[in-house]
Amino acid sequence: MGGNTFGNTFRLTTYGESHGSSIGGIIDGCPAGLHVDMEEIQFNLDRRKPGQSAIVTQRKEEDKVEFLSGIFDGLTTGAPIAFQIKNENQKPKDYSELKDQFRPSHADYTYHEKYGVRDYRGGGRSSARETASRVVAGAIAKQVLLKYGIHITAYVSAVGPHKLSKSYLELNLAIAEQNEVRIPDKAFAKSMIDYIKSIRKAGDSIGGAITCVAKGVPVGLGDPVFDKLHADLGKAMLSINAVKGFEYGSGFSGTSMKGSEHNDTIKLIDDKISTDSNWSGGIQGGISNGEDIYFNVGFKPVATIMQDQNSIDTEGNEVTVVGKGRHDPCVVPRAVPIVEAMTALVLVDHLLRNRTMKL
Amino acid sequence: MGGNTFGNTFRLTTYGESHGSSIGGIIDGCPAGLHVDMEEIQFNLDRRKPGQSAIVTQRKEEDKVEFLSGIFDGLTTGAPIAFQIKNENQKPKDYSELKDQFRPSHADYTYHEKYGVRDYRGGGRSSARETASRVVAGAIAKQVLLKYGIHITAYVSAVGPHKLSKSYLELNLAIAEQNEVRIPDKAFAKSMIDYIKSIRKAGDSIGGAITCVAKGVPVGLGDPVFDKLHADLGKAMLSINAVKGFEYGSGFSGTSMKGSEHNDTIKLIDDKISTDSNWSGGIQGGISNGEDIYFNVGFKPVATIMQDQNSIDTEGNEVTVVGKGRHDPCVVPRAVPIVEAMTALVLVDHLLRNRTMKL
Amino acid sequence: MGGNTFGNTFRLTTYGESHGSSIGGIIDGCPAGLHVDMEEIQFNLDRRKPGQSAIVTQRKEEDKVEFLSGIFDGLTTGAPIAFQIKNENQKPKDYSELKDQFRPSHADYTYHEKYGVRDYRGGGRSSARETASRVVAGAIAKQVLLKYGIHITAYVSAVGPHKLSKSYLELNLAIAEQNEVRIPDKAFAKSMIDYIKSIRKAGDSIGGAITCVAKGVPVGLGDPVFDKLHADLGKAMLSINAVKGFEYGSGFSGTSMKGSEHNDTIKLIDDKISTDSNWSGGIQGGISNGEDIYFNVGFKPVATIMQDQNSIDTEGNEVTVVGKGRHDPCVVPRAVPIVEAMTALVLVDHLLRNRTMKL
Amino acid sequence: MGGNTFGNTFRLTTYGESHGSSIGGIIDGCPAGLHVDMEEIQFNLDRRKPGQSAIVTQRKEEDKVEFLSGIFDGLTTGAPIAFQIKNENQKPKDYSELKDQFRPSHADYTYHEKYGVRDYRGGGRSSARETASRVVAGAIAKQVLLKYGIHITAYVSAVGPHKLSKSYLELNLAIAEQNEVRIPDKAFAKSMIDYIKSIRKAGDSIGGAITCVAKGVPVGLGDPVFDKLHADLGKAMLSINAVKGFEYGSGFSGTSMKGSEHNDTIKLIDDKISTDSNWSGGIQGGISNGEDIYFNVGFKPVATIMQDQNSIDTEGNEVTVVGKGRHDPCVVPRAVPIVEAMTALVLVDHLLRNRTMKL
Repeated sequence: MGGNTFGNTFRLTTYGESHGSSIGGIIDGCPAGLHVDMEEIQFNLDRRKPGQSAIVTQRKEEDKVEFLSGIFDGLTTGAPIAFQIKNENQKPKDYSELKDQFRPSHADYTYHEKYGVRDYRGGGRSSARETASRVVAGAIAKQVLLKYGIHITAYVSAVGPHKLSKSYLELNLAIAEQNEVRIPDKAFAKSMIDYIKSIRKAGDSIGGAITCVAKGVPVGLGDPVFDKLHADLGKAMLSINAVKGFEYGSGFSGTSMKGSEHNDTIKLIDDKISTDSNWSGGIQGGISNGEDIYFNVGFKPVATIMQDQNSIDTEGNEVTVVGKGRHDPCVVPRAVPIVEAMTALVLVDHLLRNRTMKL
Repeated sequence: MGGNTFGNTFRLTTYGESHGSSIGGIIDGCPAGLHVDMEEIQFNLDRRKPGQSAIVTQRKEEDKVEFLSGIFDGLTTGAPIAFQIKNENQKPKDYSELKDQFRPSHADYTYHEKYGVRDYRGGGRSSARETASRVVAGAIAKQVLLKYGIHITAYVSAVGPHKLSKSYLELNLAIAEQNEVRIPDKAFAKSMIDYIKSIRKAGDSIGGAITCVAKGVPVGLGDPVFDKLHADLGKAMLSINAVKGFEYGSGFSGTSMKGSEHNDTIKLIDDKISTDSNWSGGIQGGISNGEDIYFNVGFKPVATIMQDQNSIDTEGNEVTVVGKGRHDPCVVPRAVPIVEAMTALVLVDHLLRNRTMKL
Repeated sequence: MGGNTFGNTFRLTTYGESHGSSIGGIIDGCPAGLHVDMEEIQFNLDRRKPGQSAIVTQRKEEDKVEFLSGIFDGLTTGAPIAFQIKNENQKPKDYSELKDQFRPSHADYTYHEKYGVRDYRGGGRSSARETASRVVAGAIAKQVLLKYGIHITAYVSAVGPHKLSKSYLELNLAIAEQNEVRIPDKAFAKSMIDYIKSIRKAGDSIGGAITCVAKGVPVGLGDPVFDKLHADLGKAMLSINAVKGFEYGSGFSGTSMKGSEHNDTIKLIDDKISTDSNWSGGIQGGISNGEDIYFNVGFKPVATIMQDQNSIDTEGNEVTVVGKGRHDPCVVPRAVPIVEAMTALVLVDHLLRNRTMKL
Repeated sequence: MGGNTFGNTFRLTTYGESHGSSIGGIIDGCPAGLHVDMEEIQFNLDRRKPGQSAIVTQRKEEDKVEFLSGIFDGLTTGAPIAFQIKNENQKPKDYSELKDQFRPSHADYTYHEKYGVRDYRGGGRSSARETASRVVAGAIAKQVLLKYGIHITAYVSAVGPHKLSKSYLELNLAIAEQNEVRIPDKAFAKSMIDYIKSIRKAGDSIGGAITCVAKGVPVGLGDPVFDKLHADLGKAMLSINAVKGFEYGSGFSGTSMKGSEHNDTIKLIDDKISTDSNWSGGIQGGISNGEDIYFNVGFKPVATIMQDQNSIDTEGNEVTVVGKGRHDPCVVPRAVPIVEAMTALVLVDHLLRNRTMKL
């Protein structure tokens, strides 16, 4: 129970440090009989991989996934699905001087204290490289969900102080994937790309936000009380590196609303029970109600910057930490597939769990 | 796995519907040897109970807790601690007409569809009455944490569109408990009490926000990757009825910041490793770093309002739902002890888990 | 995680000490829509309760179960089912002198060391009284299983060195419930009743064995590798007080057999895949194959005897422990419903889990 | 939750089929700071590997383990420990004709029905090859336990109907590893080797039993009620391929004993609380009492034999299954390190869990 497993029924356990030989994971509980689309999995990995555009880290990693078990003749067998991504771009020398330094707002100090031992190379286990494993598992989860008509789409909705003014309903989400910042608005995307470049030029980094929408979720997913669907989604998002906040439906803006404004009145549309508004974000009492599920995820700026910063070393001496390496000036463009993956893991888990609650 | 258990090592399972004979729970994994302060538990329950002031629901419930096991001669024995709160104010007649109606933004429809069977009396299992059990367990968790010097304080930081302008560092949090809206600022508290009264007079409800601070948390709590401390805190908060959002440290405002602003540079103060700023909210890489942990929780307006609303019944007929009963115009004053309780459950769980990660 | 929860999907958590105010539990994950037969539950409790015949303990306990939640209008709602059995026959004075003594082969010493605190009254949490809660939950599990055509029957197959010579296939199991020792052979039952009486007269106790048969289990229950159906059954049985051994199908006698004898050759009977023999005990590769599941459970003699025994007290002084109170001379007659209950809990858990493994 | 994870706090998840590219696993929750002895791990794997002697399967597998994460500069870091064993001796052609046949007493039919899809090559996931992963994890667990003075030794105590007449106390267990059948009695070992050879010559297989002893286990491991130490040991053993029975301490022979014989009277030896006899097998009330823990595990004969057997194919046609391949005539010599490994996994899990039960 070292915190490396996610999910109850569809369960992912990941392993690997940024500068070990590989990263990967094991999925246990994937239903048998799914024809796995390998290209789709690699497509999602490519959306996350370093070096994909001019506004992300220029590290080179191919991020090719290899499956080791659980798939036979193209079909899932019900056995655990193990997979592996080799680390090709290991440059341990880059990090040798960080061995005894604690980088500000990194996990260096907390890991050092918690474990007494630390793999200091590139953040080790705390590196966001681990999220590639989530993308693999999430891509399989998405394929299960697709069989049930559930589609998940995430996009960048803010970069630093600049927010998309339109809601997801007013946007053509398909456009997001056509630009390197993954914003479903061409003009805004262009200006944000320029903005991120200016941040990088300054040796700095900037935060941002991602919005995610799940359509076609059937009524009934989520469990009451502690495992409410949005509580599990919130934990999933907050477990992603650099995430600082989560809100669903009306979110924090709902705190300013009155009940008479916020309540989603109910009506029949084509014999289907629907709501007029959807401030509930598709979830009532912790259980999906058949409307779109949507939520926002806030990311802090990446901690590694190309500027000198004050810190101390493991002996307690004052040191100046000098930024090095190849890092993202803004994490959100590459985080889009991670948000989708974690959403898929939560939904597939509850899809399967929901099968057990009626006689 | 119906979603009624919280925690891994210190584990709470709750039961009970708002209009059954009682609610309660079982705590499994509470360390032996704690001298339980019963008055402190009841004090926390009283902070949550209905009818405590003019701005909350006027339902009458004594909310007296009775312990059934796990405590002997005043000490926890390591055996499961079961407890029970009788439901004294059952008025099933109030709800009979809701049997076949789906109230807007309630869990009526989703429970009906998920289970096929529904205890319609007062929301049944979906009622916030369940949170009284969390307060009991959280009060015990707090007492364990106190032995390790950990203090948790929550307060109301916004009511509707009105937000406290000061951060927790600028406030005397002890004042919060001295007014019925639990705001640590006398003037603002007074105006918010008036505001809530005006909302109630209009038969409406309003949202709000709570800020929570945990002081004295040792370095090392939280597990990397999926069980990050803030991810578990986020799930805990989002599992509370009416919560729509969670943010910790810089939160959503951190998305607008640059790395050079947001990074918490490290220094020694009295031989203790500390940070200059605390945008990290006391958590780095998912693990507590010894600084204050603080976060905000956003609540929507209560769904039950004293106004007519459109809906449908279980047969698909259009109906007008008429608000009745005695409900809170604003949920946040009574939610303060619930936020504290869930925070305590997360921290005590990770305090115990952390004991297992070094040889 | 103090060890008081059983099951994954259909999950029982129990509480209570033998001399507290009550014992009971919470079932989480019971499917909604089951019409609960309360008389059937009480019937199973009565099979376990003290004082039911001349060969069991003469303690008086009515063991009336009360349900607190999760059942509405006679139907399970999907909400947690809490239940309670009051302890009516508390005689704490009986045990006051055991406060500082460790009874041989009891849990006194191990609890004392593990927790530092001990509820010494009648064994506290280690008392077999806890199993009444399992019988309640198991009786509900049985009712779910019956909906799927699964029947569970256990009976006493050995008392001390005296073993029933016939296999379950050669016996009319319905007879077992007609005599107080629960042996499905009238003559053997009579002689065993006399034997147990002679043991009690001598102030001693004696071990025994129970055989359990589950019929109608569909193909597919059980998960490979660690959660094999027989592994979960074995854990379930070994968790019952006084159990020393578990064997299924051919069991330990299978260790003496050759593969050519032991293999269950496969054939079609009425278009159903069946086996000629059933040394596999209805389970192959950890998964049920549709044949009868059967197994044996061995119980040690009850540790409390009416004879003086050497021991020490908490100060390390030598003491003579003097047997007192009203105890069973042989535990197996009352353990029959407990074995059935734990079998039902395992089978219902895997019945529900199995719903998630196909697309 | 497909059944491929074992343990709560020290948790092993395994993957891999007998004829996939590799098998392996992830250990989560191993304490940081353990200096891993790689040779010791390989030594344990070599004790399990095929081809090690004339009385086991002559398949060739090097079974070299490679670690992928969680160990840095020779020390465990607290991060998940992933490992991999390549399958070198894949001969899928051997199995092509089994594609549509159900071998008697194998998992072919049950997997086929449960999943609808089956990796028929050499048993796929149901192959005992999976146990190599358990040996790796168990070898690490053993190294943690050694730090706390806990030693585990298993040996073969029966082959077919031939049982070692002496108890573990009368034997020099160190001798077991000196002969290929792993029996700590030279003369009996020699005769059993001859016996197994005769069984193989006849194209048949034979069952057997293993006894395991754990010395130095501190008082206090195990949790009451459902997670009794022996219940978890029983599940662990029963999860090993071909195991049919488990008994600890007096075991099934204890069912014939009287309480006055079976009770372990308590005394002080050198200020340590000890028992005169040890029928309890070192566990009272589910919790270790500091005495030796010992238990027996019964194995059925291997199902694959070199004789023709009746069965049916997936179409329901009668077929004759012809034994092929290279299989063990008796499984117990190679199962000794597996029994030790699973014992270690249970003990280390409870060692860590026990740290959380006192204030």
